[in-house]
Amino acid sequence: MSIKITGSGSYIPSKVEKNTDFHNHTFLNNDGSSINSSNEVIVEKFKAITGIAERRYAKEHLNSSDLGFFAAENAIDDAKIDPETIDYIIVAHNFGDVKHTTVQSDMLPSLASRIKHSLRIKNPKCVAYDILFGCPGWVEGVIQAKAFIKAGMAKRCLVIGTETLSRVVDKYDRDSMIFSDGAGATIVEETDEEGGILAHETASYTYDEAYYLFFGNSNNQELPKDTRYIKMDGRKIYEFALSNVPKAMKACLDNSGADIKDVKKIFIHQANEKMDEAILKRFYRLYRTDIPENIMPMSIQTLGNSSVATVPTLFDLVKNNKLENHSLSKGDVVIFASVGAGMHINAIAYKY
Amino acid sequence: MSIKITGSGSYIPSKVEKNTDFHNHTFLNNDGSSINSSNEVIVEKFKAITGIAERRYAKEHLNSSDLGFFAAENAIDDAKIDPETIDYIIVAHNFGDVKHTTVQSDMLPSLASRIKHSLRIKNPKCVAYDILFGCPGWVEGVIQAKAFIKAGMAKRCLVIGTETLSRVVDKYDRDSMIFSDGAGATIVEETDEEGGILAHETASYTYDEAYYLFFGNSNNQELPKDTRYIKMDGRKIYEFALSNVPKAMKACLDNSGADIKDVKKIFIHQANEKMDEAILKRFYRLYRTDIPENIMPMSIQTLGNSSVATVPTLFDLVKNNKLENHSLSKGDVVIFASVGAGMHINAIAYKY
Repeated sequence: MSIKITGSGSYIPSKVEKNTDFHNHTFLNNDGSSINSSNEVIVEKFKAITGIAERRYAKEHLNSSDLGFFAAENAIDDAKIDPETIDYIIVAHNFGDVKHTTVQSDMLPSLASRIKHSLRIKNPKCVAYDILFGCPGWVEGVIQAKAFIKAGMAKRCLVIGTETLSRVVDKYDRDSMIFSDGAGATIVEETDEEGGILAHETASYTYDEAYYLFFGNSNNQELPKDTRYIKMDGRKIYEFALSNVPKAMKACLDNSGADIKDVKKIFIHQANEKMDEAILKRFYRLYRTDIPENIMPMSIQTLGNSSVATVPTLFDLVKNNKLENHSLSKGDVVIFASVGAGMHINAIAYKY
Repeated sequence: MSIKITGSGSYIPSKVEKNTDFHNHTFLNNDGSSINSSNEVIVEKFKAITGIAERRYAKEHLNSSDLGFFAAENAIDDAKIDPETIDYIIVAHNFGDVKHTTVQSDMLPSLASRIKHSLRIKNPKCVAYDILFGCPGWVEGVIQAKAFIKAGMAKRCLVIGTETLSRVVDKYDRDSMIFSDGAGATIVEETDEEGGILAHETASYTYDEAYYLFFGNSNNQELPKDTRYIKMDGRKIYEFALSNVPKAMKACLDNSGADIKDVKKIFIHQANEKMDEAILKRFYRLYRTDIPENIMPMSIQTLGNSSVATVPTLFDLVKNNKLENHSLSKGDVVIFASVGAGMHINAIAYKY
């Protein structure tokens, strides 16, 4: 028995927000003071660090659960399954549905219930729940699907990551340029084929790190203190990720029994281009091995950081040959890895 | 190998809100029209249906994650375990932390991360995540703990249900009197003792039922439409619960192999006294058996409906002999059952 991804789908919002669209924003420092640079310089510096040139925002009438539903439909089509045969719908997100121009998270009912409703699935034995686990939520959802299958509680799961971060950013904060909207979904199921999930690794660092990403006030000190936005301590996160993500990836790969030379792709959370490259470097250094060419597909340049959606979207793009210089062949070992709010880290070693 | 609850804890907020405290509220119908009864009559009628005489509200400076932390500390003490040995912290809630007098849900980081942080647990291998599953979230968390243990991914889990519904009620809605705050927690672990979790049953009804509980506007039509509150279609929920909860409980008990005569306690979600009594009646009718005395401990009269917190709190009260006429003895078969937003239903047959 193995546990494989038998279908994938994604939803990339059509609205493109370019870096130049931020040229007329008012950016402030955390303490509300103005920044001694022109917006053109701020934006160029931002691009040099993160690699982000543009990002996607959901249309105003769409919410996170809508994006997740679109991605789920694609994954179901791709897997060519009857949706009534799904045992679990696991939806990872961090803010629920946040309607355009409002500040409340709507999670009543949960997004999984909404998506199951939209998919018109009747089977009440299909259990639909949401998981909150920071950006690594989709990877963790796959790990939970593995648990249900191994425990004999499920055969087929739909795992979705969906987020509309554009609705929770502080537009006075330069970090607002990082975040974007999107959704990815996969069907994870028990099969007789060989390969699939070889090993996983999860870690929650909360002792000192719990609040590296947090919900905080606007940099504009004149805005009401009751309204809060996604905020992060970028420097601490960068250092934390570099110290811990390569180790977790190595622990996962070593547990899988696969060799570093077998690894053909690394699908890593798209948080920051420079950070991801540094993680990759450290990961290969742990094996005293050179980094192979085209090992790490990236989408952050055009899609930004859509939290839980980045890894499944990236996988879907590569699987369907929609990312230049990247493809997958049967038998390829790949690694999924993520890091984010919590702070959580996880990784899956997977044989395609 | 069996999976048992080896410790329990709860946190019952100290602030008592009596029915008489609602006598000076302004209650309106859903369409904003005034109600043709005095508040005294409205409140009496409310009590006759729900059984609720008073409920508990969290102190202003405390949030849902604080309540969950207090309950978790009690459960850890009760189980006499080293918190560093916990493999999973699973936190069920539906609204995150909602600070007093604000309307935003704060779930960044997730409540599980906050609680693990407050517990000062260092072990990064202790995975902390939140589950959104309506009122049945705590019961579902125990089912997920079972999955991790059966899959060999965990030995010991901390499962928490915590909620501050007082922060999301529409005070112009009579239903606001139902809701309360609270938290319950349990340690669920692999043991060599006999008994423990015998069977479980979960169902998600979303085709017609997804929005029976929802996030909606105030009955006061003059309030901003951007602010929303917990809302429910009480009649539909009542009928739905009566049709489906007894069936799910029976499926669960039948799967467990235990006899209806072995059942010593039924811990059912405290949503409405009359509804719970009607569910009990139907459940025993399915077995053509009389309802035994003192089979169903109730706390709704004084604690109201604290969502995910009701079942673990009720269990904790009975386990510690804090509820008159109720106690547990080794070998007793009990049923945990819940129903709520989603609409989800679940049940666990458990040998104490």
